[in-house]
Amino acid sequence: MLKSEQNEFITRTGPDTPMGNLFRCYWIPALLASELSEPDCPPVRVKILSERLLAFRDSEGRLGLIDEFCAHRGVSLWFGRNEECGLRCPYHGWKYDVNGQCVDVPSEAVESGYARKIKLKSYPLVERGGILWTYMGPADRQPELPEFEFAIVPDSQRFVSKRLQETNWLQAMEGGIDSSHSSWLHRGDFGHDPLLKGAGGNKYNFNDLAPVFEVVESPGGLFIGARRKAENDNYYWRITPWVMPSYTAVPPRGDHPMHGHFWIPIDDENCWVWSYDYHPSRDLTHAERQAMTDGLGIHVKYIPGSFMPLANKHNNYMMDRVAQREGRYFSGIEGVAMQDASLQESMGAICDRTKENLVGTDNGIIMARHRLMRAAKQLAEKGTLPPGVDPQHQRIRSAALLLPKDAPFQDGAKEALVAVLGQPQVTV
Amino acid sequence: MLKSEQNEFITRTGPDTPMGNLFRCYWIPALLASELSEPDCPPVRVKILSERLLAFRDSEGRLGLIDEFCAHRGVSLWFGRNEECGLRCPYHGWKYDVNGQCVDVPSEAVESGYARKIKLKSYPLVERGGILWTYMGPADRQPELPEFEFAIVPDSQRFVSKRLQETNWLQAMEGGIDSSHSSWLHRGDFGHDPLLKGAGGNKYNFNDLAPVFEVVESPGGLFIGARRKAENDNYYWRITPWVMPSYTAVPPRGDHPMHGHFWIPIDDENCWVWSYDYHPSRDLTHAERQAMTDGLGIHVKYIPGSFMPLANKHNNYMMDRVAQREGRYFSGIEGVAMQDASLQESMGAICDRTKENLVGTDNGIIMARHRLMRAAKQLAEKGTLPPGVDPQHQRIRSAALLLPKDAPFQDGAKEALVAVLGQPQVTV
Amino acid sequence: MLKSEQNEFITRTGPDTPMGNLFRCYWIPALLASELSEPDCPPVRVKILSERLLAFRDSEGRLGLIDEFCAHRGVSLWFGRNEECGLRCPYHGWKYDVNGQCVDVPSEAVESGYARKIKLKSYPLVERGGILWTYMGPADRQPELPEFEFAIVPDSQRFVSKRLQETNWLQAMEGGIDSSHSSWLHRGDFGHDPLLKGAGGNKYNFNDLAPVFEVVESPGGLFIGARRKAENDNYYWRITPWVMPSYTAVPPRGDHPMHGHFWIPIDDENCWVWSYDYHPSRDLTHAERQAMTDGLGIHVKYIPGSFMPLANKHNNYMMDRVAQREGRYFSGIEGVAMQDASLQESMGAICDRTKENLVGTDNGIIMARHRLMRAAKQLAEKGTLPPGVDPQHQRIRSAALLLPKDAPFQDGAKEALVAVLGQPQVTV
Repeated sequence: MLKSEQNEFITRTGPDTPMGNLFRCYWIPALLASELSEPDCPPVRVKILSERLLAFRDSEGRLGLIDEFCAHRGVSLWFGRNEECGLRCPYHGWKYDVNGQCVDVPSEAVESGYARKIKLKSYPLVERGGILWTYMGPADRQPELPEFEFAIVPDSQRFVSKRLQETNWLQAMEGGIDSSHSSWLHRGDFGHDPLLKGAGGNKYNFNDLAPVFEVVESPGGLFIGARRKAENDNYYWRITPWVMPSYTAVPPRGDHPMHGHFWIPIDDENCWVWSYDYHPSRDLTHAERQAMTDGLGIHVKYIPGSFMPLANKHNNYMMDRVAQREGRYFSGIEGVAMQDASLQESMGAICDRTKENLVGTDNGIIMARHRLMRAAKQLAEKGTLPPGVDPQHQRIRSAALLLPKDAPFQDGAKEALVAVLGQPQVTV
Repeated sequence: MLKSEQNEFITRTGPDTPMGNLFRCYWIPALLASELSEPDCPPVRVKILSERLLAFRDSEGRLGLIDEFCAHRGVSLWFGRNEECGLRCPYHGWKYDVNGQCVDVPSEAVESGYARKIKLKSYPLVERGGILWTYMGPADRQPELPEFEFAIVPDSQRFVSKRLQETNWLQAMEGGIDSSHSSWLHRGDFGHDPLLKGAGGNKYNFNDLAPVFEVVESPGGLFIGARRKAENDNYYWRITPWVMPSYTAVPPRGDHPMHGHFWIPIDDENCWVWSYDYHPSRDLTHAERQAMTDGLGIHVKYIPGSFMPLANKHNNYMMDRVAQREGRYFSGIEGVAMQDASLQESMGAICDRTKENLVGTDNGIIMARHRLMRAAKQLAEKGTLPPGVDPQHQRIRSAALLLPKDAPFQDGAKEALVAVLGQPQVTV
Repeated sequence: MLKSEQNEFITRTGPDTPMGNLFRCYWIPALLASELSEPDCPPVRVKILSERLLAFRDSEGRLGLIDEFCAHRGVSLWFGRNEECGLRCPYHGWKYDVNGQCVDVPSEAVESGYARKIKLKSYPLVERGGILWTYMGPADRQPELPEFEFAIVPDSQRFVSKRLQETNWLQAMEGGIDSSHSSWLHRGDFGHDPLLKGAGGNKYNFNDLAPVFEVVESPGGLFIGARRKAENDNYYWRITPWVMPSYTAVPPRGDHPMHGHFWIPIDDENCWVWSYDYHPSRDLTHAERQAMTDGLGIHVKYIPGSFMPLANKHNNYMMDRVAQREGRYFSGIEGVAMQDASLQESMGAICDRTKENLVGTDNGIIMARHRLMRAAKQLAEKGTLPPGVDPQHQRIRSAALLLPKDAPFQDGAKEALVAVLGQPQVTV
């Protein structure tokens, strides 16, 4: 449970908010690389952290993320012509380069130097792992590029998608680091989703519905361990790493690709849910890639031409009471992603954390909140760089393994939780 | 005309408002019984008096009306599984019974007694007369069940429907107790609606467009008498009873079934218009029931799968200017119910009563407002139980009859206005 | 750039605002005459200057613009019956004439004189030039009828349309008096729109993309001159008159009909863009009229049955990136009107003028703002009648002509800028 002012503090990420400043310490996903696929392609409107921006790729292939609106009279540059190394406003022809620098004001004499004095807000935009990442903080604190494993394996080993969720980022992320709900909400899917079923570990999920949680701090965030009863003197451990501010990795299931999420605030009442799948030691198969494209696993089916899920709050997520009664989908909603999204959106745009009743299985959530608030305060008060900025903090993995009952998971799984390029995941 | 603060006082019915507390003294309609037709059927979201609730029927057929949101992390229990005498939240499996008592928190040891400490807000829900009624006030003041005649006649004699209206409850109700408008707005319908036409009394409505109103207090509310000129030394009286807080009965027309309404606030800008038809001394005919189902009389045609009228503000209520010009529908809108709804919604969500110009025919409205405000104040100040709670106050009827000019209607119609089970209505 | 309080001052036009009072000094367009085409036709809801009104034509053909809502209980008279020289409320039969005077309250005895005491707010409504004009100010200051040339030429020489724009009126008007953008935004259209192409002057537009602006005050507003390089020792001048509060005339192109606009606030976040075309000395051809009906030139295609453009913000104005790349439409949007509307709506409902960077070509906008604010202040402080009320101020024209380099345009074009009925425009 949070106090009302804590709930405000932790959910607001616009300019000049403490949590907004925290997010502005990191490289964060802004667009899919496929959204800006070639030089001079159409620009794309991007709203992140409550800022309205425009992404484009210029004639030389350079990427830019600039203020959406022309400095002259404020029209949207989305209507602009992307040509000859710049985006030209269609109203009066003012032209900007990928850094937001105005390079032409046709009505003013070149000698006046007027254009040079005009510069739009801009942020760096770099491609890595099928994603265009941006960094929206002060230039002198720009960190090294992200090194999450999924982003640096070869493209043939990875699939990335994003979807719109109409809630604050935090309740989306809290759902993601709370693995205890999978035994309930997603139980039907482990039996039939081709990207989830058949793993040896699934039986432990079904057999023990009261997992015990142990959470420890990692340099970049947390390791959230959930143990369930297994044969002999073992526990079945599923370990979910969380890296600040909002990256997580779901524990693997057999040889299925590993997956996880990033949650990025659009504004305080909407967020992007980024979903990746990758296999650390082999290419994705054609069947796997097709299943992901079709919205299976943690991905979704879309309204064509958009990133809005086809099943959404306006159609009650295509609730199927027969499938619910028969146990195919525990909540009546199809697919892991929309099962999460439907419940999280049902909490309201910003869920009221003053009314919660948290229990032991919520320890990961509780510790993540505290770590976020602590880091945001230390950043505000002392300028302390928060955990998770250092790429070293990002070289982690999830794991699913059997350990003797008396072995602390952070020791027994120590090596399994380190990302080593090319090495297979540790999984049951 | 009301002062601005009076208009606020009388229209607001959320928790801890004086008028909201008044509504919370009564049994009020919450759902159609057909919405929860069998054990373990899907739960239904219900918003009443600005509270978001969930109604369900458990495996034993018991009814519950509980807080819509799980006590754990606030997801909507509408997504819940209704099974084994309780509703189980699909997120982490917390389970609630019809009283809102939590009966299972799977992650916590049963011995801990944790579940027992968790209880959602809940209200009683009882079936009577095709309606599920709730009482949302303090348990120690729960009154006896409602005894409105329509609700206690055999099912074969009754038809009930509800529709969504996008206005405050009060302006909907004020339209309902204002019988003077029927000579204008509904005049076309008396000629052709099979549930209204052909009554002997209709001619008086047409012949005298300036009825005189006399209003007297009844134990539970008001009797609103409208007299029109008739043959010899008689008046044609149409007497509309109103029972607090928002029940009314339209005066009968010949042997047609009698009908009336309940208006229940959803929130301050939306309400449910409940509409009932019943015959006190015979079964409804197949043709009558079919006509009601088809949206004739005081009922409506719906957007399929909803309680939203097919003709609504988004399509200008299917305004037909030709039918208006030719007199078939005086306002151009088809059907008594939508004629009322269209005008009431055109006043705005909460109509501004500081700008009215009321006349003699509005006396019923004026007295009902005063009685409501007086009762809400006495409840707030002295805890006085308001009129209309006592089932004795509910055993009334409307009537339509000829009386000698010198007979006060409350004397002449005294017996006609009492509901006596099985006895025919008094009607012309 | 304006200060925040100046932006408020100049954009708000509701009752009792300084700029609203300024607008209430003028005759302004309210409806197309075709919207009230015959006696007793359906009434039309009209919102202007944030007031909700109803326009109707009575049995004698008289026009009225009255409060939309009945004085009795506030229902919309749009549902009223228009018959026998008045509009009758369908609720209780109250009837109003075109002056808003209540002429019948059926429930009250005629002798009581009650109806006479009830009068709705009303404004005069007069037909001129295919438009119904209203004057919403104090009766004792009602000016003479408007004498804009387009409105007084024979009907056969004129075409008028209107469209809804979802912005404040001012940014729409600022786009209209800013002729510098046409070289950019509309450049594709000069080549192929049948109502614009082929004029001799178009080549100057294409050849000189840095026009120089000279703006001078006129009795009713401004003359905004834009000069571009031409052959020999000449300049090509395009002179746009602006008459307060929001009338403008686009400079002509060859023998094409002349056109221009009126911008009328609906409320502070929406406006009507009125568009007229007329030829001062000949009838419009059938082909011209057809092209205007089809949405060419400065007119638009509509969503059938509405004044909402078919291309609008909900469908990204039917953005065509191929047409943009190929240069057919510079912004990718089809048609001069929607090119303007799309950009103006992209600025937000009320554009933030504190963030602008204005340049020399914005001088017309700067001077128009100052003149508006000055006039509104003088009206508020001293009751000074503002420029543009006097019909003499309205008898102006735009012009496009070649002048020697050393001739001030206000001298060289002096006669060309005067509207003389029947005389051809001065154009290149």
